[in-house]
Amino acid sequence: MSILVVGTVAFDSIETPFGSAERILGGSASYFALGASFFAPVRIVGVIGQDFPQEYLELFSQRQIDLEGIKKASGDTFHWRGRYHEDINVRDTLELHLNVLSGFVPDLPERYRDAEYVFLGNIDPLMQLEVLNQIRRMRLVVCDTMDHWIRESLDGLRQVLKRIEMLVVNDSEARLLSGESNIVRAARAILKMGPKVVLVKRGEYGVLQFSDSSIFATPAYPLEEVFDPTGAGDSFAGGFLGQLARSGDLTQQGIRRAIVYGTVVASFTVEDFGVKRLASIAMQDIEERYRSFAQLTDFHT
Amino acid sequence: MSILVVGTVAFDSIETPFGSAERILGGSASYFALGASFFAPVRIVGVIGQDFPQEYLELFSQRQIDLEGIKKASGDTFHWRGRYHEDINVRDTLELHLNVLSGFVPDLPERYRDAEYVFLGNIDPLMQLEVLNQIRRMRLVVCDTMDHWIRESLDGLRQVLKRIEMLVVNDSEARLLSGESNIVRAARAILKMGPKVVLVKRGEYGVLQFSDSSIFATPAYPLEEVFDPTGAGDSFAGGFLGQLARSGDLTQQGIRRAIVYGTVVASFTVEDFGVKRLASIAMQDIEERYRSFAQLTDFHT
Repeated sequence: MSILVVGTVAFDSIETPFGSAERILGGSASYFALGASFFAPVRIVGVIGQDFPQEYLELFSQRQIDLEGIKKASGDTFHWRGRYHEDINVRDTLELHLNVLSGFVPDLPERYRDAEYVFLGNIDPLMQLEVLNQIRRMRLVVCDTMDHWIRESLDGLRQVLKRIEMLVVNDSEARLLSGESNIVRAARAILKMGPKVVLVKRGEYGVLQFSDSSIFATPAYPLEEVFDPTGAGDSFAGGFLGQLARSGDLTQQGIRRAIVYGTVVASFTVEDFGVKRLASIAMQDIEERYRSFAQLTDFHT
Repeated sequence: MSILVVGTVAFDSIETPFGSAERILGGSASYFALGASFFAPVRIVGVIGQDFPQEYLELFSQRQIDLEGIKKASGDTFHWRGRYHEDINVRDTLELHLNVLSGFVPDLPERYRDAEYVFLGNIDPLMQLEVLNQIRRMRLVVCDTMDHWIRESLDGLRQVLKRIEMLVVNDSEARLLSGESNIVRAARAILKMGPKVVLVKRGEYGVLQFSDSSIFATPAYPLEEVFDPTGAGDSFAGGFLGQLARSGDLTQQGIRRAIVYGTVVASFTVEDFGVKRLASIAMQDIEERYRSFAQLTDFHT
């Protein structure tokens, strides 16, 4: 049950109230792939520049992540620089260099084209459509997006929404896409645009999941230390889709458990800079925190 | 197992994006008492003015709420006027007339002085202490406060904290009281000030509960319509302490279930202006939504 992810592989330069880091491994595909790799084999489709260090590629390889779909283009790697406020939920983008990402057209290796579980990371909806067009058959497609694409590429995004099963957005993206300020109404409006399931990520407040027949609400894992929220959403998606691929259980209960696994993976991500924490844990740590999470949300017994 | 509440009984004048209401029944003791009255007998200690309508008192009486502790003073009733923003989580206080509340000294009727479950609503900590001094024996004291008292009456509040079992605050009050921006650390710091349990209310995002040995996290009940958030926190406390009094179960699991009952009561409160919705539901509605809540947060089976 392998997972295909298309998204960015990037350099991130990050300042938080607790410190800073320069040109560390970042990007939606990186966080997703590392998060999902605990659960199932992962294949990445993306682009890097000539300046991308071998060391970062090795980090993927150590996790058995398939890199055949990563194209090395001439030029520099996509680079994002951001700063988090005292209120760690708020961040500013200071610099954004698309570099090799501009003009990138995904071209899936032949053996990637029978994909079962697909994650369309936060990239141009036209690029997401291109990926969908190259896949011959798939069981489940989960898609992420952001305010920029909702504003600038709504037609493309609407086409994508008709062809996916699940959309992952945050509160403000759900409001922007639907035009509804109440989050329940916002999600219901988005369900009408195509996806069978809408996941609303609320950072430290948890996740809401909507389908036509069910709502699921879960808090986040309460943490004493949040060093760097970068990649929380993408590694959440990685843990989520990873668990779905591992279990093959697409029932409502299976989806709920996958959301909790995603929540647990994201809780590790934010405990250190970049992918540092994700790179240091094992599946056993995830299972342990999953049990602890089940315990700290339980009021049934 | 009766419950004693001391707090405000007030007129609220409210504007929300969905409408407005003039001089409707409000105040912390009112919302608390109505919320708790589904679960156990409630006694109110508070003050009203000559202008307080009989009709509002009858609303309490219909719920078997004991009004002997409500003093009718010469002057006008406490009156709050507020406006909610488009983002319904944000509100401005437009007017605040203390009226008969200024100079009020609680004087508990003799038969109130053997109280078992006590809720100290959001009033001056010195008034909260006065109530504690008049009670001969009690099983459980839950206390609320607000940023104003944390800033202006911290010494009194610190004395209160040494004499109560549980504190109910929101995110920003917890941060202000502790000086910690991370909410888990903030709660741990407050536990050191006296209370055995700290409940952090996060509005539409749910509740966190902290004790030395346990953390409990729960989302709020997702609602399609939030008309008026006024009284959500106090009616939460009412449902919470009401359930503790009804069950007598002060174990961690009992406290967790009580938090969910509080969450359910608060979810009804915000569905209409003022106490309108609270006044129209029955215990059966609460039990039904409790079951629905258990279902929409469950990922164990």
